[in-house]
Amino acid sequence: MKYEIGVYGLGVMGASIAQNILNHGFSAAVYSKAEEERLHFPSGKYTEAHPGGCLVCESEEELVQSLQSPRKIFLMITAGAPVDSVVETLLPMLEAGDVIFDGGNSYYKDTDRRCSLCAGKGIHYVGTGVSGGQLGALYGPSIMPGGSYEGYLAGEKILTKIAAHVEEKPCCAYIGRGGSGHYVKMVHNGIEYAILQLIGEAYMILRHGLGMAHEEVRKIFQEWRQTKLDSYLIDISVRVMEKYEEDGVPLIDRILDVAEQKGTGKWTVLEAVERGVYAPGIYEAVMARNFSARVEERRAGAGLLTVTGDDMKLDDAQAELGDALLLAIALSYSQGMELIRKASEDNEWHIDQKVLADLWRDGCIIRSRLLKDIKAAAEEAKEGPLVLSGAYREFCKSEAALRKLVVQTESAGFACTGFAAALHYYDYYHMQDMPVRFVQALRDCFGAHTYMRTDRPGHFHTEW
Amino acid sequence: MKYEIGVYGLGVMGASIAQNILNHGFSAAVYSKAEEERLHFPSGKYTEAHPGGCLVCESEEELVQSLQSPRKIFLMITAGAPVDSVVETLLPMLEAGDVIFDGGNSYYKDTDRRCSLCAGKGIHYVGTGVSGGQLGALYGPSIMPGGSYEGYLAGEKILTKIAAHVEEKPCCAYIGRGGSGHYVKMVHNGIEYAILQLIGEAYMILRHGLGMAHEEVRKIFQEWRQTKLDSYLIDISVRVMEKYEEDGVPLIDRILDVAEQKGTGKWTVLEAVERGVYAPGIYEAVMARNFSARVEERRAGAGLLTVTGDDMKLDDAQAELGDALLLAIALSYSQGMELIRKASEDNEWHIDQKVLADLWRDGCIIRSRLLKDIKAAAEEAKEGPLVLSGAYREFCKSEAALRKLVVQTESAGFACTGFAAALHYYDYYHMQDMPVRFVQALRDCFGAHTYMRTDRPGHFHTEW
Repeated sequence: MKYEIGVYGLGVMGASIAQNILNHGFSAAVYSKAEEERLHFPSGKYTEAHPGGCLVCESEEELVQSLQSPRKIFLMITAGAPVDSVVETLLPMLEAGDVIFDGGNSYYKDTDRRCSLCAGKGIHYVGTGVSGGQLGALYGPSIMPGGSYEGYLAGEKILTKIAAHVEEKPCCAYIGRGGSGHYVKMVHNGIEYAILQLIGEAYMILRHGLGMAHEEVRKIFQEWRQTKLDSYLIDISVRVMEKYEEDGVPLIDRILDVAEQKGTGKWTVLEAVERGVYAPGIYEAVMARNFSARVEERRAGAGLLTVTGDDMKLDDAQAELGDALLLAIALSYSQGMELIRKASEDNEWHIDQKVLADLWRDGCIIRSRLLKDIKAAAEEAKEGPLVLSGAYREFCKSEAALRKLVVQTESAGFACTGFAAALHYYDYYHMQDMPVRFVQALRDCFGAHTYMRTDRPGHFHTEW
Repeated sequence: MKYEIGVYGLGVMGASIAQNILNHGFSAAVYSKAEEERLHFPSGKYTEAHPGGCLVCESEEELVQSLQSPRKIFLMITAGAPVDSVVETLLPMLEAGDVIFDGGNSYYKDTDRRCSLCAGKGIHYVGTGVSGGQLGALYGPSIMPGGSYEGYLAGEKILTKIAAHVEEKPCCAYIGRGGSGHYVKMVHNGIEYAILQLIGEAYMILRHGLGMAHEEVRKIFQEWRQTKLDSYLIDISVRVMEKYEEDGVPLIDRILDVAEQKGTGKWTVLEAVERGVYAPGIYEAVMARNFSARVEERRAGAGLLTVTGDDMKLDDAQAELGDALLLAIALSYSQGMELIRKASEDNEWHIDQKVLADLWRDGCIIRSRLLKDIKAAAEEAKEGPLVLSGAYREFCKSEAALRKLVVQTESAGFACTGFAAALHYYDYYHMQDMPVRFVQALRDCFGAHTYMRTDRPGHFHTEW
C-alpha cells in the first residue's frame, strides 16, 4: 500500500508529530537516519492504534517509494545544514508536484532559498513552524506554514487535523510566501523569550525582592490562573513550584541561574535591530540568558558594586505585580507583532496579524487567554502597533502598577530588565520630544550630518 | 616627480586628509571621480602651502603612475560597493608591495575579504579607521589601522604624522590583522552613539524634566567642562547651546526630534547581539534614533497613554546629574571595550585595549579626559570588564546618583533609556541570582531543555 504522508526524523518532536498524524487516522511512512529511533517507533507510551497503517522505512528510497502521489514529506530534523543535506538527498527521488514540509526551526532566509531551489524543480517547499513542545506536537501543536501555497493545500487536510483546535477552528493557517511561516515561528519564540523573562522576574521579585516564602509565591501564581494571566506558561510555573526535592526543599531553589538558548531568540533580536523595530523586551530576555553565564564576574562584582536605594515594598503584591505582569506580557506581543508587520511589509508577505493571534490561541508555548484581546487589537490596528489599539486600553490601565514596580526594582538594584523594557516601550509611544533632538544638533556640529526643523520642511546645516 | 602618497576621493573627509598630509610637508597626488571635487582642490579656507608638492590627477592611471614605489593610496570614499569597485579598478594597475589604505567606515568583514583578495595579488590592504570628523581629518584625527602589517609599516611615517598627538605620542597605532582596525572604529562609533544619547537625555532632563531655562542648562554644561566630564562632546554641546535664531530663540529649540544614522551604530549592536555581549547603552541609543522617526504614532500615543508618577526633582542638578552622566559615560566605554575584547578573542586579533584608550585620547569624537582612567582600567582588566577594575571604583561612587536619576525618570515617564541601560549594565554585574533560574525550570518543563544545579555539576532533566 501507499501511505498518505511521510515523516522524516523521529526524535522527540518528529516521533510525536508522527504519532499525532497516526492517531488522527492517517496512514504514514516514517524514517529516521538513527537506527535506534526507527526501532523505538512506535513504542513506549506513545504507542496507540493507527488505523491508517504505519510503515517504518529503512531508507530514504523506501520512504519516498511508499508515499501516495503527490508525495508529502514532513521533515522533523535539526535546523541548519542537516535540512540542506536531506533536501539534497530527497530532491532527485521526488517528482514534480511533491511537497516537502520543513517542521524545524529553520532560519527564514534558508527557507526562502530552499523554496526557490525546490520550485525550480517543480517541488513545493513549505517552511512549517511548529510550536507546542513535545506534548503539543503529540496532541495538537500550533502550526505556521509558509512557502508554496499549492504545497500547503496538498497537506492542509492533515495539518489542520493534527493542529490544536479552539472553538473547532484549527490553530493552523497559511501565513504567506517564502520563509514567512518560519519567520512567524521565530518571532513567536522571541515573544516566548520575553514572557519567560517577565515570569522569571515576577518570581524573583516575590521571592527575593519582597522576601516571600516559596508557598506564598506558589499561591500567588495559582491565583493568577483565575485572571487574564491564565496561560500555559503560568500553568507550568505553578507546576514547577510544586516539585520538591527529597529533603523537602523546592527543586527550583537548587537550580542554577545560568540559562541556555537555541538560536531563535537571537535571530529575532538581530531581525528587529536590522529592521529598526524597537523590541526591548525580546532584546533584554535574550541578553539576560547570555549574561547569566558570567558567574565568576557576577561573583566578583558583588564585592565591588554598591546598591544605594530603598528595598521593595508593594501594598498588594498579588494584584499589583499581577497587573504589571499582564501589561508587560501584552506589550511583549505588541513588540513581536510590530516586527512581523515590518518584515511582512519589507518582504510583501501580506501577513494577517489577527490570523496569527488565532494560531497562537492554543497548542503553542505562548498560548494565553490574552490572545482573544490580542486578536481584537490586531483586527483594529492594521497599520499601527497593538499598544495604541482600543483593545489595549484595558491593559494600559495597569500603567501605574508597572511604573511603580520598575521604580522599585531600579531603586532596590534588582535589574528587572524585562519589566523596565516593557515600560520603556510604553513610554516611547507618548514621547513628544525625544533626546535625539539634541543628538541631531551635535551630529550636525561634528559631522555636518544636517537636521530637520520644527517650523519648516527640509534638511539644514549650521556652521556652529 | 613621483609623489609620496595618493589620496583617492576628495569629499569633505578626503580633501581634509589630503590637506593634512600636504600640511605636514609630504608630497601627494590626489584624485576624485567627481570633476568638481578635483577643481575645488586645493582651494577655499583649506588652501595652505604644500612644500612637498601636490598633483591633482585627471584619472586613476595618472594617480597610480605618479606615486613612488611602493605606492601608497589612501581611499577616502563611501563604504560599501564603491570601495570594491575602486579596488577592482586599481588592482591591475598596482605592483606587488603597493599598499591600499581604506579610510572609510567599511564593514569589517568586507575589509577581511579585501585583505585576502589583495594579499593574493601581493598587494597590502590596510583597513584604516579614521575618526574626528572634518576638523579632525584636517588637523589630526585618531587613526585605527588594521590589516597588512607590512602595509601599515610602509605608511606608518605619514599616518603617525597626520594623526592627533597627546604628549607627543600619535593617536595612531596598528590594531591587528584583517578587519580589526575597522572593527575598532565601528565600536568607537557605537560608544559615540551611547554617549550622544546620554548627553541628549541629560539636556532633556534639565530642560524638560526639571524645567530649567535654556541659559541655566547652558551654564551647567559649561561648568561640566571643569570636571572629568571635560570632553569634545560636552564642548560642542555648549557650542550648540550658544547658537540663537534671529528672533533670539535658541536654535536647539527649533530642531526636530527625529534622528538619522549611518550604519556603524547598527552594526555594533548586531555584532554585540551576535557575540552575546551585553551592551544595552549602544542598543538603546541606536533604537532611540529609529524610534524617533515614528512621529505620528508618538503623537497618537500622547492622547492615549497615561503617566502616573512623580515629577523629577534633584537637590543639586549640576552635581547629581553630572555624577550620573560621568558614570554612565564610563560604563559606555566599558560596554564597547567588552565587545572589542570578545571579537578580538573570537578572531584572534590580540587587540590591546590600553592602546585603544591611547588612540582615542585625542583626535576622535569620543576623546575625553576620562580616557586616562579608561587606559588605567584597561591595563588592569585584561580579561575582565572595565567596570570591575580598580580604576572604575572612583566612577562607581556615583552609583547612588545614577540610580536616583533613573528612578526619577522612570517615575516621571521620561524614558531615559540610555541612563537606564547604564544602570542595568551596572546592576547585572552584581546579580547573584538572576531570574533566568526560573526560566531554566520552565524551559525544562515544556521543552526538556535541561538545567544545571547549584549543588552538583551536570545537566539535569525533571519530569515536572
